Amino acid sequence: MNSIDVNPLGSRFPKTMAAELVEVGRGFYARGWVLGTSGNFSGVVSREPLTLAITSSGVDKGALSTDDILLIDGEAKVLEGKGRPSAETLLHLAVVKLRGAGAVLHTHSVWSNILSDASFGEGGVKIEGHEMLKGLNGVETHEHSEWLPIIENSQDMAALAATAARTLERNPASHGFLLRRHGLYTWGRDLAEAKRHIEIIEFLLEVLGRTSFTQKR
Amino acid sequence: MNSIDVNPLGSRFPKTMAAELVEVGRGFYARGWVLGTSGNFSGVVSREPLTLAITSSGVDKGALSTDDILLIDGEAKVLEGKGRPSAETLLHLAVVKLRGAGAVLHTHSVWSNILSDASFGEGGVKIEGHEMLKGLNGVETHEHSEWLPIIENSQDMAALAATAARTLERNPASHGFLLRRHGLYTWGRDLAEAKRHIEIIEFLLEVLGRTSFTQKR
Amino acid sequence: MNSIDVNPLGSRFPKTMAAELVEVGRGFYARGWVLGTSGNFSGVVSREPLTLAITSSGVDKGALSTDDILLIDGEAKVLEGKGRPSAETLLHLAVVKLRGAGAVLHTHSVWSNILSDASFGEGGVKIEGHEMLKGLNGVETHEHSEWLPIIENSQDMAALAATAARTLERNPASHGFLLRRHGLYTWGRDLAEAKRHIEIIEFLLEVLGRTSFTQKR
Amino acid sequence: MNSIDVNPLGSRFPKTMAAELVEVGRGFYARGWVLGTSGNFSGVVSREPLTLAITSSGVDKGALSTDDILLIDGEAKVLEGKGRPSAETLLHLAVVKLRGAGAVLHTHSVWSNILSDASFGEGGVKIEGHEMLKGLNGVETHEHSEWLPIIENSQDMAALAATAARTLERNPASHGFLLRRHGLYTWGRDLAEAKRHIEIIEFLLEVLGRTSFTQKR
Repeated sequence: MNSIDVNPLGSRFPKTMAAELVEVGRGFYARGWVLGTSGNFSGVVSREPLTLAITSSGVDKGALSTDDILLIDGEAKVLEGKGRPSAETLLHLAVVKLRGAGAVLHTHSVWSNILSDASFGEGGVKIEGHEMLKGLNGVETHEHSEWLPIIENSQDMAALAATAARTLERNPASHGFLLRRHGLYTWGRDLAEAKRHIEIIEFLLEVLGRTSFTQKR
Repeated sequence: MNSIDVNPLGSRFPKTMAAELVEVGRGFYARGWVLGTSGNFSGVVSREPLTLAITSSGVDKGALSTDDILLIDGEAKVLEGKGRPSAETLLHLAVVKLRGAGAVLHTHSVWSNILSDASFGEGGVKIEGHEMLKGLNGVETHEHSEWLPIIENSQDMAALAATAARTLERNPASHGFLLRRHGLYTWGRDLAEAKRHIEIIEFLLEVLGRTSFTQKR
Repeated sequence: MNSIDVNPLGSRFPKTMAAELVEVGRGFYARGWVLGTSGNFSGVVSREPLTLAITSSGVDKGALSTDDILLIDGEAKVLEGKGRPSAETLLHLAVVKLRGAGAVLHTHSVWSNILSDASFGEGGVKIEGHEMLKGLNGVETHEHSEWLPIIENSQDMAALAATAARTLERNPASHGFLLRRHGLYTWGRDLAEAKRHIEIIEFLLEVLGRTSFTQKR
Repeated sequence: MNSIDVNPLGSRFPKTMAAELVEVGRGFYARGWVLGTSGNFSGVVSREPLTLAITSSGVDKGALSTDDILLIDGEAKVLEGKGRPSAETLLHLAVVKLRGAGAVLHTHSVWSNILSDASFGEGGVKIEGHEMLKGLNGVETHEHSEWLPIIENSQDMAALAATAARTLERNPASHGFLLRRHGLYTWGRDLAEAKRHIEIIEFLLEVLGRTSFTQKR
């Protein structure tokens, strides 16, 4: 075990946050949402100064352990732990700063890949009229209309983070966004809420995806 | 652990009922039927006076514990346990009173969402000719025709419970009903039967849903 | 535990057979092939006189225990254990007698329900050209053509067993048969082979079912 | 336990390699990628002389144990362990020799069966534009175009291995190949990379397969 686990005096890294990220990640792996070392997860450890626990890059989420969780600062510099932080750390930081999120989760599911491509021309996926939407923070009725903007994928992480930031600003009511043929980003005030948001949005993307080719006999 | 677990002298809340609701709920979560804190489960603890064990509102069903089970009376007042009872408690009570059910289970599956919307115009989903129907209480042959009425979803729980009550009265042979773009309600004489009914109806909704767009080559 | 578990001197019921049926049944339940107490499983304990271990009727396969396994004779009379044998015991006995099977397994999957109905007019499902077919006993090449006859479902178990017997005689090369909108029967020289046959046929039914509505872009 | 487990002085078979193959195999079984004793897995134990750990033929991957892993030489001769090596050992050896792979994994999934048949006329499956592709060794951008050649299935293993070898030589950039109506072969520098490649390609085949019949409403 490394310092993340034993949390020696002086470490700013709470063991429970790392353990909870591990549990969430393993659950998502079991559902096939973070296969092939895809996906990344973060949680805010402190706001002032900003410090984040985040999954290390290229880790098998089915074998995730607290050793795979790093502590970084608000500029993505590693403060504790081994390995590089996720290549998409800048997107996590953008979400944390612009939404005040306490946790950010990113998955690569079959349905988010399909719908982020099929609906790219419309600029986003609209989900409305489903009871499940009530599980999104602040939503009080199934009559809510949720808009998940779709961002073209890119390997220029600074540019992608800047695009994500603009997208967040233009869509202040959105609870997540999709990267085209890539996956879903969502967040929450804490990890439990972010996990709930992933489950809800992944569920609704599957409903939408299956509905689009279901016809009555 | 709270009083539900230790079941001290004087508690009206049997430990086994809470533990069984937890086990059922975790199994449904694994199948993706109660993601995102959706779904709720109840069991009758006593008829006279009516007391129900019911899941607390907004709980992650994958982390469900006996601490998340409340004891309520026939007016939805909490007798034991912490947290609020499920927002849909009035529907559980309506089913218990009108059907004499010993347990009521409510799931949010992909296929119940799709079919409750696709068949809304017909007022319900008809399932007939399947051997699986024989697992429904009182059904002796696959030639049975099961009618699952669909109720428009609403956030007015008193109104929704009243509509559900009328629906139950008008469809005395139905073993469950659907809330549009929301999910399935079913029940049983006891929890084992209610669990069986959920599995059977969810299975048949999936068969129906997949069949509707399957054509022979 | 009952006599099945402790296997006292004099019991003809080997503990391992019951434990293996339980393990197979729980695995099938996890895959959604025996939901809602559906499905039944048997294994030959002795040929002379014919004695079978078979699942008790109406048991939750996700909670299956060795207590749920009965010992019956060749006329379906219970020799040991509590509960009634499965309603479909006569079909198990027909397969054992006509195929010399050492184990018979029956599942209710989504795809067997769909295909047994969609292909009923043709009298069966033909599966050919798949490598997976080589896992069927005696099949040496993927060029094999497997014919799964479909039998109309019935609640007259004596009549259904007689029809199954005729079907087995007319299709001596078939490794299984389907009951319409009901499920799959297959068997093997022993339980391991019967389990392998279930997995292979269920897999291929899913491939066939999904292929029938997949078109190239 | 046999010599593979205890790894006595003199055994060339590292216990960890066998244990890791078992863990990977059980995980793939849980996902339904190696049902019915299908699939096989190997890892290079030494290059000089070439020795491979490989799954024994006809083993239930859900009950895989280190006893089911054999040690073979570069001519497919068994050096340690009981049972026959997989019938497809020659394909594993071809991949190891031509790609310098440290591990070779072969799965039989529903989607690889469907797509290897549907795309057979084009000679392969092209996957491009997906972020998931970045998980393939050496791929730096989602703009990568991956070509998975499809080989006609055969029971002549020497001929099939020769065809696979020619296919590997003609497609030096491919990270895997499909056998028609049979399954997927991929590999990696080590077992972790090969497992990652299986997860990525299986995921993308599912995305492609589902996309091909998904239309926008």
